[in-house]
Amino acid sequence: MSGVDPVRVLRDLRELATFGAYKTGVHRPTFSEVDMAARRWFVGKLEEAGLEARIDGIGSVFGRAPGSGPTILTGSHLESQNHAGWLDGPLGCIYGLEAARALGGGVDVAAWCDEEGHFGSFIGSRSFVGALPEDEIDRLANRYDGTPLRTALERVGLGQEPRIAFEPGRHKAYLEAHIEQGDTLESQDLKIGVVTAIVAIWQYRITASGEQNHAGTTSMTRRRDAGLALVRLLGEVDRRFPDVAGPRSVWTTGRITLEPGAASIIPGRAEMLFQLRDADPAVLDRMQAELHALVEVANRDGRCPIAIEVMGQSRPALMDEALQDAVEAAVAAKAPGLSLRMPSGAGHDAQYLARVMPSSMMFVPSIGGISHHWTENTSDADIALGAEVYCDAVARMLAT
Amino acid sequence: MSGVDPVRVLRDLRELATFGAYKTGVHRPTFSEVDMAARRWFVGKLEEAGLEARIDGIGSVFGRAPGSGPTILTGSHLESQNHAGWLDGPLGCIYGLEAARALGGGVDVAAWCDEEGHFGSFIGSRSFVGALPEDEIDRLANRYDGTPLRTALERVGLGQEPRIAFEPGRHKAYLEAHIEQGDTLESQDLKIGVVTAIVAIWQYRITASGEQNHAGTTSMTRRRDAGLALVRLLGEVDRRFPDVAGPRSVWTTGRITLEPGAASIIPGRAEMLFQLRDADPAVLDRMQAELHALVEVANRDGRCPIAIEVMGQSRPALMDEALQDAVEAAVAAKAPGLSLRMPSGAGHDAQYLARVMPSSMMFVPSIGGISHHWTENTSDADIALGAEVYCDAVARMLAT
Repeated sequence: MSGVDPVRVLRDLRELATFGAYKTGVHRPTFSEVDMAARRWFVGKLEEAGLEARIDGIGSVFGRAPGSGPTILTGSHLESQNHAGWLDGPLGCIYGLEAARALGGGVDVAAWCDEEGHFGSFIGSRSFVGALPEDEIDRLANRYDGTPLRTALERVGLGQEPRIAFEPGRHKAYLEAHIEQGDTLESQDLKIGVVTAIVAIWQYRITASGEQNHAGTTSMTRRRDAGLALVRLLGEVDRRFPDVAGPRSVWTTGRITLEPGAASIIPGRAEMLFQLRDADPAVLDRMQAELHALVEVANRDGRCPIAIEVMGQSRPALMDEALQDAVEAAVAAKAPGLSLRMPSGAGHDAQYLARVMPSSMMFVPSIGGISHHWTENTSDADIALGAEVYCDAVARMLAT
Repeated sequence: MSGVDPVRVLRDLRELATFGAYKTGVHRPTFSEVDMAARRWFVGKLEEAGLEARIDGIGSVFGRAPGSGPTILTGSHLESQNHAGWLDGPLGCIYGLEAARALGGGVDVAAWCDEEGHFGSFIGSRSFVGALPEDEIDRLANRYDGTPLRTALERVGLGQEPRIAFEPGRHKAYLEAHIEQGDTLESQDLKIGVVTAIVAIWQYRITASGEQNHAGTTSMTRRRDAGLALVRLLGEVDRRFPDVAGPRSVWTTGRITLEPGAASIIPGRAEMLFQLRDADPAVLDRMQAELHALVEVANRDGRCPIAIEVMGQSRPALMDEALQDAVEAAVAAKAPGLSLRMPSGAGHDAQYLARVMPSSMMFVPSIGGISHHWTENTSDADIALGAEVYCDAVARMLAT
């Protein structure tokens, strides 16, 4: 290993953050001008490092090390959420680049397109592992302005490019570095998260049906207030879920809609988006069973029937044990005692890579646990230490 | 009194319901073509009854009995809520017309414009009592399509018409008939509601401020979920309000908005519209004090500060006691034992007329308590009985 250069890592990250700079973060939506400029810049950096690099037909950057392998696949993503942080994605890409430079070979580097979902859901990594069919590409469109994905690919000159696909036998493993996006590491003064699994997300649309009526003339006893039915259900969820959840489970009500939504009308219909996340299917089963039980109790009086629609039920992606051990060994060498094994509460491209090769992830601390906001940050010292551990771990994976 | 003709009342109501017929109800927004046709039709009916009638510069129909008075002022409104019922408003107008016909003099009839608030709030009756300044008319616009009120008045040919104003000394009293819009009468097999007061509406915007964050990476203990803060507050309101409210108090949460409103983002801000109604200011004070107390308790942990903004605090409009007695006397003559003194939970033009003359209201039953929906209805027998009682009450008021 020719040596990790943390100064170079920080300089590259800062240069990358100039593409779409927004306050102290970046605004770099997928296929925007600044996003394409960042992708081309990254291709240049990979070529400087001796890789054969290009942008493929779905927008992913792929840098291929000389030779037939086996190699370690590294990377993350380059685009950002709207008006968001400078490290969410870029950190893992530049760590991959640094590993390629430091190890002088045996390291491929990818920047998977649109992890942040401006057009779809993990289209870059899914395309690579063969889980993005052509007809889904036909259907996808920008969630903000409706531009079809095909149109966007044509506009940025990628419409005729082939898509890079998984090449059996080439990669021993995938290792993705990322900011934690929570405060688990920071709150315990730890520096490296060794990811054990990427949580599953179980998503529901829960609807209460009542009777729309006049808020002045309808007595409290006569009402069938659909909004109140959901509020009462959420009160029970709030009381009961801590008992059935696991220590790292999270549950979130992201949206509540009362219809028709006027001050003087009793809501006749109410709807909410409700989500569970955990790395353990047994815990998810328990929480879902509790949700159904609470709805069943609520429905016993029958005044405002509540219905649960399952919108998605993913499986947790388990990270490879041997790779976790390799990261731990790198931690023991560079930052002894400063790591924690933990699940990832957020989705990452590694969950798709794990379908085709041993995969793992490594986290660095997020200041204040802030994420998806332009104030997201990680200290220079933690970024530098993370680069040392990451490159050491990649070297260990390559050597085994 | 030359005699009330219930058949004529029902025939007129049915003819009026053909203007903008929608299923078994009507869709007759203020100043729509069907609405203006209904107003012109009503002018014709008033003229047939011997009144001098016209549509004034704010859109109200006013039929003036021959002579200098004193007279009894009757009426209600002609436009409907969108896709709503056929009797909400028209009942009181046709009862007024019937009283003018039956009594053969001494009865003025008004159809106050836009009681349903397509452009503003009670603009017809407020204009009449001198509570609608020119600069408010300048500002008002259609709440659905934004058309300025001035433009709408020009389009329907009323832009240059004078506004009819209260004429001191002419009217002894105002009596407005209306459907109940609730099920109080129906549930007790009663036929006439003698309105004691029109409730006050106290309206609040309640806002919780938390921290927008990632729904996967932010632990339950670290979260500052603004939506959950409002759900918990509403749970306490649900538990506590029955103890502090009066027997007829109502409280309603008509809208809840979580920001940004996405499945995977913890709401950083949450807002709701909350409303109290009661005819007794002391009860309203008690409920408001409880609301403030619950918010104060919620704010003790300081994680998601909750703020209350008062959007409106009207006063209840007390109905004249002597007029209530006149209606009761008519009930004793036409439907003995079948009346109930009750407040109106909905707002009505009578609350503005009460500012300038003794005013009262009389309710007939609503089938199933349904209102502001095209299925709103009242039985023919109840409409007929209501007309008898109403005209008798007007005669008694005129005679005293």
